[in-house]
Amino acid sequence: MFKSAVYNLKDAGKEQVQEFLNSFDTVLSDCDGVLWIDNNAIPGSADTMNYFRKLGKRIFFVTNNSTKIRSDFSLKAQQLGFIASENEILSTSYLVAHYLKSIGFKRKVYLIGSNGIGDELKAVGIEHVGVGPDHVKPDFKSMQLSDLDPEVGAVVVGFDEHVSYPKFMKAATYLNSEDCLFIATNTDERFPKASSIVVPGSGTLVRAVETCSERKALVLGKPNEYIRKFLESSGLNPARTLMIGDRCNTDIEFGVRCGFQTLLVLTGVTSTKDLEKISKDKIEPLPDVVLPKLGDLLSLIET
Amino acid sequence: MFKSAVYNLKDAGKEQVQEFLNSFDTVLSDCDGVLWIDNNAIPGSADTMNYFRKLGKRIFFVTNNSTKIRSDFSLKAQQLGFIASENEILSTSYLVAHYLKSIGFKRKVYLIGSNGIGDELKAVGIEHVGVGPDHVKPDFKSMQLSDLDPEVGAVVVGFDEHVSYPKFMKAATYLNSEDCLFIATNTDERFPKASSIVVPGSGTLVRAVETCSERKALVLGKPNEYIRKFLESSGLNPARTLMIGDRCNTDIEFGVRCGFQTLLVLTGVTSTKDLEKISKDKIEPLPDVVLPKLGDLLSLIET
Repeated sequence: MFKSAVYNLKDAGKEQVQEFLNSFDTVLSDCDGVLWIDNNAIPGSADTMNYFRKLGKRIFFVTNNSTKIRSDFSLKAQQLGFIASENEILSTSYLVAHYLKSIGFKRKVYLIGSNGIGDELKAVGIEHVGVGPDHVKPDFKSMQLSDLDPEVGAVVVGFDEHVSYPKFMKAATYLNSEDCLFIATNTDERFPKASSIVVPGSGTLVRAVETCSERKALVLGKPNEYIRKFLESSGLNPARTLMIGDRCNTDIEFGVRCGFQTLLVLTGVTSTKDLEKISKDKIEPLPDVVLPKLGDLLSLIET
Repeated sequence: MFKSAVYNLKDAGKEQVQEFLNSFDTVLSDCDGVLWIDNNAIPGSADTMNYFRKLGKRIFFVTNNSTKIRSDFSLKAQQLGFIASENEILSTSYLVAHYLKSIGFKRKVYLIGSNGIGDELKAVGIEHVGVGPDHVKPDFKSMQLSDLDPEVGAVVVGFDEHVSYPKFMKAATYLNSEDCLFIATNTDERFPKASSIVVPGSGTLVRAVETCSERKALVLGKPNEYIRKFLESSGLNPARTLMIGDRCNTDIEFGVRCGFQTLLVLTGVTSTKDLEKISKDKIEPLPDVVLPKLGDLLSLIET
C-alpha cells in the first residue's frame, strides 16, 4: 500500500497503521540489526514480533547468518523474548543444505564456513571438509593435488573467522574444475555495528574466493529469491507478505525482487543519514515504509 | 607498428622483425610468466633480454610481485641469467614506498603484505605494522579500538600468505576513517600456473579488503599508469617503448593505457586457447604482437 514510498509510519494516522497491519498475513524479518544486535535484543522488537503472531500472522526469521543451526537460532530468539520455533528459522546454513539436497547432490562439500553450515549439511546426509583453522605452511606454494579431497564436488562459502590463504588456494583449485559447484550463503559486506570496530561479513570472503577462482557464486541468502521459491511450496502470497530489514542492498532488495511489502528500520546498518540520502536521491531499492525501530510500531497502535 | 593487430611475429619476414626491433628503444618486461615461473627461467628469455640490452635499449623489469625488495629481484634475475641492476627493477613494493614518500606521507602504514613492502617502506623512513601471522582469537568480535595503532594513516594491501580475519577487521576499521589512505600493489587474481594448484594473487586480498571497507583501493601496479608517470621523469618516450607481458588484463592493458607498443607471450597466464578467443572475439585490450615465448624472437633474427 506504500509501494517504494519510503513513508515514515510515524507520520501515519492510527487508521492508516491499522490498514497497513491488515495488508499482510506473513511476516519475514531479518534478525541481526532488526531484532537484536549480537546477543542483545533491540527494545520493543520481541513485543512487536509476538504481537504479529497474536494477530494470526505467519512468522519467519530470515537471516543471512550462517554460523548457527536452526535450533540454535530459535533458542537464541526465545532467550531474547521472541516466540519462535525451529521451523520458522530460515538461515543460510539451512538453505545451503536444503538446496544441495534438493538437487540430489551426493558428493562432499569443501566448506569455508563454520559448523552452523556443517551440521545442517550433516543433517541431510552430506559430508563436508574444511571447517576450523588451516594455517599457512612455510612451503605453502608446494601444495599438491594429493593434499585435496577428490570427492569434493562443491565449494560453499559462508562466514569463517578461520579464513586463511590455504583455504583460498584449496577453494580456487577445487573450483578450477567446471563440475564443482560454487555456493555462497550471502554477500553482506559487514555485520551491523555494535562498536567502532568493523566486523567483516561473509561477502568479504565470497568476493575473495570469486576473485581467485574467477567464477561467480550462486548466492542463496538475501537478496537472492531462493527463499521465496522455498516458501511458495507452502502457499506464500507475495503481495500479502511483509519483509522487515535494516539493509537496503540485502533485505529491501530481497523484498522488492520477491514482490513483498517492505519495512526498513534504522537499528542496524542503515543510519538516519543514509536514509536521508536514499530518500533524497531515490537510490533503489526503496523501502515502502520506514520506522526508527521495529518496536515503534506497537506504540503507534497503542497511542 | 602493429597497433592492436594480435600479429604473430613468427609470420613476419626477417626485415619486418628488424623493423619491429628498431621501433622501440625502451623495453619494459613483466617477470613471472614471461622471464621465469617461480624459480625457473623460461628458456630463451634471458638471452633475448640481454640481446635487447646489447642493442642499446633501456631495460626495466616491471613486476606486480610485492614480496621482495628490488635488490632481491635483481639478484634473482642475475641468478637466472639476466643482466639486471637494482635500479632497473620496478616492483610494486618499491612503487608503494616511492608513492607514499612523494606525497609527503608521515604516518604509519598498516600492511597486509610481506617484508618486501615493509623493507622498501623502511628504506624511505616510513614505519609499518601488521606483517606476519595474526591469528584469530576465540573472542575476536571483542576487538577494541585500543587494539589498533592510532598512528596508522594508510592501509597497504599486497601479497600476504598470512592473511587472516583479524587482518581484515583491522584494515576495515582503519579505513573507516576517511583520512586513512588505501593503497594496493596490484589486483592480479592468480599467479601464473606452474601446476594444477591455483595460487591466489594479491587481487584476492584487495577485493576482500575493498568489500569490508566499502572503499576502492588506489592500485599502483599494472595496469595503473603510475609506472609511466614514474618513468617520464627520466625521459620516457611512450611511442618508442615496448611492454612485454603474459596477461592481457594487467600487462597489455597497462601498455595500451600508457601508449606503449605491446608484446604478448604465451608462457604464463594467457593460453593458446585464450588467445584464439581474444583474437576471434576482439576482446580488448588487444596486444600488437604475439609470440609463443619471448625466446622465439632471437630465432626469428637468427634464421
